This record gives sequence, structure tokens and C-alpha cells, in this order.
Amino acid sequence: MTARPGNAHQARLLRLLRDGGPHSRAQLGDLVDLSRSKLAVEVDRLLETGLVVADGLAASRGGRRSHNIRLAPGLRFLGVDIGATSIDVAVTNAELEVLGHLNHAMDVREGPVAVFEQVLSMVAKLKSLGLADGLDGAGIGVPGPVRFPEGVPVAPPIMPGWDGFPVREALSQDLGCPVMVDNDANLMALGEQHAGVARSVADFLYVKIGTGIGCGIVLGGAVHRGTTGSAGDIGHIQVEPDGRACGCGNRGCLEAHFSGSALARDAEDAARAGGSAELSTRLETLGKLSSADVAAAAATGDQVALDLIRAGGDRVGQVIAGLVNSFNPGMVVIGGGVTGLGHTLLASVRTQVYRRSLPLATRNLPIVLGELGSTAGVIGAARLISDHLFSPA
Amino acid sequence: MTARPGNAHQARLLRLLRDGGPHSRAQLGDLVDLSRSKLAVEVDRLLETGLVVADGLAASRGGRRSHNIRLAPGLRFLGVDIGATSIDVAVTNAELEVLGHLNHAMDVREGPVAVFEQVLSMVAKLKSLGLADGLDGAGIGVPGPVRFPEGVPVAPPIMPGWDGFPVREALSQDLGCPVMVDNDANLMALGEQHAGVARSVADFLYVKIGTGIGCGIVLGGAVHRGTTGSAGDIGHIQVEPDGRACGCGNRGCLEAHFSGSALARDAEDAARAGGSAELSTRLETLGKLSSADVAAAAATGDQVALDLIRAGGDRVGQVIAGLVNSFNPGMVVIGGGVTGLGHTLLASVRTQVYRRSLPLATRNLPIVLGELGSTAGVIGAARLISDHLFSPA
Repeated sequence: MTARPGNAHQARLLRLLRDGGPHSRAQLGDLVDLSRSKLAVEVDRLLETGLVVADGLAASRGGRRSHNIRLAPGLRFLGVDIGATSIDVAVTNAELEVLGHLNHAMDVREGPVAVFEQVLSMVAKLKSLGLADGLDGAGIGVPGPVRFPEGVPVAPPIMPGWDGFPVREALSQDLGCPVMVDNDANLMALGEQHAGVARSVADFLYVKIGTGIGCGIVLGGAVHRGTTGSAGDIGHIQVEPDGRACGCGNRGCLEAHFSGSALARDAEDAARAGGSAELSTRLETLGKLSSADVAAAAATGDQVALDLIRAGGDRVGQVIAGLVNSFNPGMVVIGGGVTGLGHTLLASVRTQVYRRSLPLATRNLPIVLGELGSTAGVIGAARLISDHLFSPA
Repeated sequence: MTARPGNAHQARLLRLLRDGGPHSRAQLGDLVDLSRSKLAVEVDRLLETGLVVADGLAASRGGRRSHNIRLAPGLRFLGVDIGATSIDVAVTNAELEVLGHLNHAMDVREGPVAVFEQVLSMVAKLKSLGLADGLDGAGIGVPGPVRFPEGVPVAPPIMPGWDGFPVREALSQDLGCPVMVDNDANLMALGEQHAGVARSVADFLYVKIGTGIGCGIVLGGAVHRGTTGSAGDIGHIQVEPDGRACGCGNRGCLEAHFSGSALARDAEDAARAGGSAELSTRLETLGKLSSADVAAAAATGDQVALDLIRAGGDRVGQVIAGLVNSFNPGMVVIGGGVTGLGHTLLASVRTQVYRRSLPLATRNLPIVLGELGSTAGVIGAARLISDHLFSPA
């Protein structure tokens, strides 16, 4: 795809078709503030670009039946979500429906060259399955701050070797299509906004709790990235004066006290200390523990596992309470790897937020788990690149 | 003034004249994207409304000299800043220059009826000085959260008796002009953005440390008020697990550990304990202490006073560090009553923020004192109502 919308009206029409599927010309006319003749001109121009096609007859509204307009069925977007310990790659159509989705375990610390080699081989596999003859654009999420205009990760604490790597430039060359890069929590927020629990919510926070902790901030319907692209970097907010040493060089950071990796370490300590038969057995069998083991132990009613989850929920709830006082959002979504901890975690978070934030801010504040799981990031990535491509060039 | 701009172009022109003073038609043409003839139409319509006047000949740009256009010199805005312990009332012209400013000590807990009686008598005094024959609009700031669309304070912790009081409606009746109401920290942020240290900064935080603590959040040039108007309510973020009891019912809130009133209480305790001759003498003489006494004692080199300020700066710096990680602003402005504590306070805040926030977020982050002092709130209030009146009706 080289075509881009020629003006803001065309961009608006493309996004309406992306978010709402096929529309008749009459329906589009109801949604955009354009005269009938002006609308016809813009739709015709879009048909000429090949971005949209006429497809099937629309239901009659009394007059002559018109064709439905829809986005070209051959458009393909790539969504890539690079996590600390895994890679997700998906292909979507122009309506951002996932046509194919692959996951591969890989440590982000292997560096950008190895990671993108893996991404490209996953893309090749999706192509070999016939899911993507050509790609029209790709969105890439990375687990750290990104200088957004250039698409370059900056000083990412859990991504040694990535500082300044030109992700956007390198990938757009390798993939042969336009590429946009963003922080993974921002993309998960976009994903939940597009297709998940935060649809139609203008202001919300997406708190991602995985190996690290991050926050995607959506204000007025758009991601707030901040002056240098590091907005939402909440993993290093202090929760314990003189607390645990953190990888960032400070003490008492949220991430050092509760995150996927902190929880795994705490569970291993508890298993070795012999407090939990369930965790000890798992550690003996597996040689190490993850947050999934804690979730499994908690599901059996293991008290130590439940206590670990509750203590973690208290920590992250304390930070979220501060965010709620600061941003006064309309919703808080919890996502990322530890959502397997489910409602025990959520109950602790809610208790902290409802206790510590002002009543005015929490009166109608849903605090919920994300709906999309591991597809939030790839759908958000596809949404990011489609927002870019469905803007005037 | 009953006239309002008829469309977005006229609104844009009014704001340009407000923020930049008189312009020639040619200069306005350079600033707005309108054809010469279309611009002439819009300016002529504004001249008809009486909102702008032709005034003096502009400097020649080679052709025929044209008249300068400026906002009507008789337009008057009222800015009212109701603090916890004092009231500021000012009259400005349409360019938001302060023509007269009165201050009166009064406890907000006397309630809205008594407070607004006082405000009206201050307005009468300004009128008697010939500073405001008529008022074209008024902005009102109150030290608590406000349901912005209705202009009603909501459950304000330090304002018993104000919950749900229809400030906007009551005042617009009493003053006979349109009124807008907002949280005081939001208005101080607007003031510093309009005429102070934050001019030309799109994203910044204004941290007001007075009797209580609040934060005005400006993102993309506009105040972020949040879903229910309580964004920036940072005084109740926890800084000490199981810390001091706070008026809000929780423990360890920032406001309970550092604010104008917490500092005064700590200083009195220190004076009674006999650690500081300077503070003890002041307490004996005055019967009570305020943050101004701590500032004065610190200026004499009093170690106890300096330690109190540093400890407070550490507390508030810790919270600001979290805000910087979350919002990634382009500037942090410290204002409110305790700015008399000056650079000792600022040094502690900076130390905490630069130590605890990520380097990417602090690399080019000025942390500065507000420039406008006690006029920030009244200028911001005038700005608020002018933004409203200089919008299409």
C-alpha cells in the first residue's frame, strides 16, 4: 500500500470503516458532516486509491439501494509485541481482526539483532500460511520507553543492548512497509481501547504487570506519551522507603517489590523456606518458579501463594491509588502476564484504591482485568500503524 | 458584554489579540490561515460586536498603512482566588493585565455565604476605585475539586460547608456576568502558562503547596481535569506507610506530612521542644507559627528550620518524582504559600526527582518556582473566563 488518504475527511472515513466495518454511503453520510455531493467525491477518491472497495448492496433505506463501502479486503497489518521473555506476532486485516498469531519464547536481552531475526522468521511463517501476501504496515511494541517520532528505544532498563537501536528504520527496510514503534503498555492500552474492555472510554489507565511494570495512559481518546516518550513509567515509583534494591539503581521501587520477576523470586524463597508444600513441590520438579506457578498454587488454596499475591496487589494498588488521584481516569485496566493471578490480585488492588483515593475519583471507577490477554499488544500495534496510515500523508 | 465570537476563526483572532496585544490586519493575516478577504470579513464582524476596536496606525509594511486591531479597552474580567486562609480579587483588562488587586485574610471554613459576601465587598471597592465600571466575566478558584461543567465544588476536604454549593450560578447572579469555577491549582497553572514561567510549555505540572497541596496538570496546552474534575489531587498520595493521621481519614498522606499547616505544626513542636531559639522566640511573641516564620528562621541560618524545610522538600519531591515518571512533563513549577521557603525547598525537591525519576524523564526537566506569586491564581481565573468567552457561543 502506498496510497494514503488525501485529506482529513478521507482519513475520517477510513477510520470509520476500520472501526465499524462496511457502511453504505447513506450511513457514512449520517456519520460525517459532509454534504451528499462532497461525500460522494471523497468516497470516489478513496475507491480510486484502492484503499476501499464497493462490496454488496446495502439494505434499502427507501430509495435506490447503494453498494456497501468497505476497506480493501487484501490490506494486511502486522502487529509485533516484544515482551521481556516472549515475542508475539500477528497479522490482521484492515479492520484489525487477527488472521494469524504466533508466540515464541525469547529473552529480550538477546538483543535487537537476534530478536528481529526471530520476528522475521515468524513473519515468513505467517506468509507461508497464506495469511499475508504483502504487508501494508507494521506496529512494534517494546518493553521500555521509546522516542516516539523516531521509533527508537531509549535507555530501556530491562533491555540492555537496545538503547538507540533504530527499530523503525531497520524493520521498515526488512519488512518493506511503513513501521511505527511504541512502548508495549501503550499498545496494550490501544488494543483494549480498540477491541477490548476500554471501548468507548476516553480517559483510562492500562497497568501492565509482566516481568516489569508499565502503564499506558489514554487521555481524551489518545495515548499520552509525555515530553520524551517515558510517560507511564510507573515501575520505578517508590513504594517502600529504603526498600529492596532495584535494577535501576534506586531502592524501594514498585518493580523491585512486585512484578512477574519479583513474584517468582519471592515464591522461590518461600518454597525454600518450606512454608508451602505446593510451591516446594513445584520448585523441586521445575527447578524454578514463575508467576504462573504462584497462580496455580493459589488456585489450590495455598496460603503462602495467596499471601504473596495479596501483598503484591497491595503494593501495586498503592501506586494505582496515586495515579487515580493524579489522573482521575474513567477506568483502570490491569493486564500483562500476572493477570493469571486474577481476582485475588484485583481484590487487593481495589481495596487499596478505594481506600486511598478520594471518593470523588473512585465513585464510578471500574477497576477491571483486560479482556484481550496476549492479543492486546498485537492488536494495539496494528491499530498504531493503521492510525498512522489512515492519516493524511 | 453579551457578544461572543460567531465562529472558530473569530475566537482564534480574539485569543491572538489577548495574548499578543494589538496587531495590524496584515500581522493577523500572517498568523491565521485565512485569505485576505475572508480575514477582512471576520475582523469586520468582530468590530461590529464591539469586542475589538481599530486603534492607531500600524507600522508600514510597504503598502498603505492600516489600523491596528485590538481588544476593546473597556473589557473587564474579574479573577477571584479563594485560598484556605485568604481571598485574592483582581480586575484585569482583556489582555489579562492586572489593573487592581486586593487581598483579604479569611478562613474558607466560614463557608460560601460569608466568603462571597466578602468577595462582593472587595469587588465593590475595586469598582469604587474606578477600575471596573462593568464586568464582562469572572473566573473563580476554590481550594478543592470542582465539578467543572456545573461550577460546583465537590466534597472538598478542607472546605466544610461548600459541598455542592452552586458557586457558578450564585456568583453569576450576584455579579451580573458569566462565571466559570475551577480548582485553584488549575488556575495557578493557567496563570503561569499565560504570563509566567510556563509560557510556551505545552506539558507541565504546577504543584501548589499552601495550606493543602494540589497540582494543576497542563497537557497539550490545556488543563487536564479528569473524569470527575479531581485530577491533580495529590495531597492524599501516601508518602509514609502507617504515617500521620490525615483529615481525609487515611494515614501517611503527603498533606499530613508536608504542607503549610503541617509545617507550622512541626515548627511549633520544635519551638516547644527548645531545639531552635529562633522559632521559640517567634512562638513566644506571636503565640503561633506559620510557614513564613519557618522561612524567616531559615533565612537566619536556623538549623531546625532548615531541616524542617529539607524534610518537607524530600516528601513532596518523592511524590513529584512519581508524577514525573507518570506524566513525563516538560517542566515542574512549584507555587503556593510555601514558595517563601525558596531555594532550600527547591534543592530538596530537585534532589529527590533527579534521583528517583528515570534519566530519560529528567534529562531536560526544569524544576522551578512560579514567577507570579499570589497573582498566578487571579490571572489564571481571568484567563479561564476569557477562554470561555472567546469561544464560539
